[in-house]
Amino acid sequence: MNELVKQYVERIQPLDEAASQEAAAHIANLTVPPGSLGKLESLAIQLAGITGETKPLFERKEVIIMAADHGVCEEGVSAFPQEVTPQMILNFLAGGAAVNVLSRLAGADIVCVDIGVKSDLAHPQLVSRKVQYGTANMAKGPAMTREEAEQSILIGIAVVEEAVAQGVRIFVTGEMGIGNTTASSAVMCALTGTPVKEAAGRGTGLTDERLLHKIGVIEKALAVNAPDAADPIDVLAKVGGLEIGGLAGVILGAAAHRCPVVIDGFISSAAALLARAICPLAAEYMIASHASHEQGHRLLLQELGLAPMLDLDMRIGEGTGGVLGLTLVDAACRIVREMATFESAGISGGEAVTSE
Amino acid sequence: MNELVKQYVERIQPLDEAASQEAAAHIANLTVPPGSLGKLESLAIQLAGITGETKPLFERKEVIIMAADHGVCEEGVSAFPQEVTPQMILNFLAGGAAVNVLSRLAGADIVCVDIGVKSDLAHPQLVSRKVQYGTANMAKGPAMTREEAEQSILIGIAVVEEAVAQGVRIFVTGEMGIGNTTASSAVMCALTGTPVKEAAGRGTGLTDERLLHKIGVIEKALAVNAPDAADPIDVLAKVGGLEIGGLAGVILGAAAHRCPVVIDGFISSAAALLARAICPLAAEYMIASHASHEQGHRLLLQELGLAPMLDLDMRIGEGTGGVLGLTLVDAACRIVREMATFESAGISGGEAVTSE
Repeated sequence: MNELVKQYVERIQPLDEAASQEAAAHIANLTVPPGSLGKLESLAIQLAGITGETKPLFERKEVIIMAADHGVCEEGVSAFPQEVTPQMILNFLAGGAAVNVLSRLAGADIVCVDIGVKSDLAHPQLVSRKVQYGTANMAKGPAMTREEAEQSILIGIAVVEEAVAQGVRIFVTGEMGIGNTTASSAVMCALTGTPVKEAAGRGTGLTDERLLHKIGVIEKALAVNAPDAADPIDVLAKVGGLEIGGLAGVILGAAAHRCPVVIDGFISSAAALLARAICPLAAEYMIASHASHEQGHRLLLQELGLAPMLDLDMRIGEGTGGVLGLTLVDAACRIVREMATFESAGISGGEAVTSE
Repeated sequence: MNELVKQYVERIQPLDEAASQEAAAHIANLTVPPGSLGKLESLAIQLAGITGETKPLFERKEVIIMAADHGVCEEGVSAFPQEVTPQMILNFLAGGAAVNVLSRLAGADIVCVDIGVKSDLAHPQLVSRKVQYGTANMAKGPAMTREEAEQSILIGIAVVEEAVAQGVRIFVTGEMGIGNTTASSAVMCALTGTPVKEAAGRGTGLTDERLLHKIGVIEKALAVNAPDAADPIDVLAKVGGLEIGGLAGVILGAAAHRCPVVIDGFISSAAALLARAICPLAAEYMIASHASHEQGHRLLLQELGLAPMLDLDMRIGEGTGGVLGLTLVDAACRIVREMATFESAGISGGEAVTSE
């Protein structure tokens, strides 16, 4: 592995067990039946372990949208034309996309990064870190070089470094890239051995016939490139995407800074799988948000050991599900900070907390 | 049926189809792939039909917590002692419960109603509408008289009337009452014929042995009282609870005023089942929030034809899941109001929106 990436991931530490235990002990005294807070309780305990604080609060929140194009689009794997990638980036920058609306609701900022869009783009708010004008067609050969794959990860790390320096303490993964469910399915299959027909879905809206075609294209890409499951950089280079590498870097960067990172949908989860393959400890910093409608996402979350909190049948990407998950992070934090304890409220215990 | 209840429910109208269609047409032009907003899209369409406005907004939100006690507690069906009902009401009024924290996050007010607590309670913020000092033990006879059941429904309606007069436009159902999962299970079984062992769960935390005992108590209550499935008031009177009747009234009141009502967990859903049995049109005004951890809740939501949006394994009640659902209502409203259209953003369509 690239020496810079390797040095960086060595900084990632396990969660702070003492802080998690303190949070769990505090929650056990709150005025609800033991365990009844469900995933909000496990989330609060995880957040304590991540930050090292029993009662963390995340004031500055940031959605990082990595955008890139995919050479495999020439195989006809998407319902939308490739020109939609730059068009949607301009929509993000103008504030009109779904992720903008939901980020305003959640009080999160958006940073949009061109890490590999096929066309030239310029906008004062756009972070330009183009590695390449889109990937090559993975159905015919590697999507990118090993060096480009490593570079995409390092860019994700650098974007997080900058945000942390500005006070951001929690991240959401977002992405844009016509064709990127194809690359994400290929990454999932290469890393986990999942059959392509279980990993590939309709993306932005393929018909039955086009879905079968997409499955064939992914199978061909895996056969042509033979990515090495034991080498995540090889998988990213051969069948991945620049935004997927960028998001893997975002996750590693967040983990290195003890910041939670809320994972959005299928593409973000493929990036999470790569991040975990590069550094298993990074998984402890991941928070699942929603189970998307995209076939394969629930399976991918299971692989990651993440339990989704939202079940909205969404399949937008952009970071939309992740941003909605921020409200649940807020809920977990505020419950720990603001609720009364059995003792402070003078409430009798139940059979589960007192002996009978 | 009671003449006042009957007259009232005759005011409930079907949803405004024209407004729903307008909302659907608007959403089809937003800058996301068709259908990709999932449940947020169907929610936005429902909210338009409920309010008659294409782009509704709900500024004043209210959680109505109905609190009451249950005579069946003397059979040992709950993990917590009955004195917890008034203790938790005081906790709600002091602002220290989970529902308080989550309501502050959602910007919702809480109204707490004593509709049948066993003890005397006084607090300037408590709405005192006590029908009876708790129900009678349904394992030995009817929980309440038919008149009391009707009165509980009318109280729920009256509380909504008052809130609507003050400008509230959306409601969340909440409840407190040690023993009320037992009554809710009995109501569900009586109305739907579901076997008791599928409807009854651990409530606030019963052991395996105590759960078996609870199932036996519910079976006995159903056998002793033989509630008439075709007569929802009979079911409520014989095996229900005063807070369950109160919440059925809240739902009917909201529907009569064309206000959406977010249904919380298992007890709220049993009240929703009663409200629908009294007036089938009321179901169109219901919004499911979460699938609780309480056994039987997913089945009950299926019976209601409601799809939960949150999957948090919570089993608190109080209105906690419903209040979290308010954020998703906000999200749906703001997406409709704030997102760009394909045309306004200059974005190319996909195969699903253009002919190929």
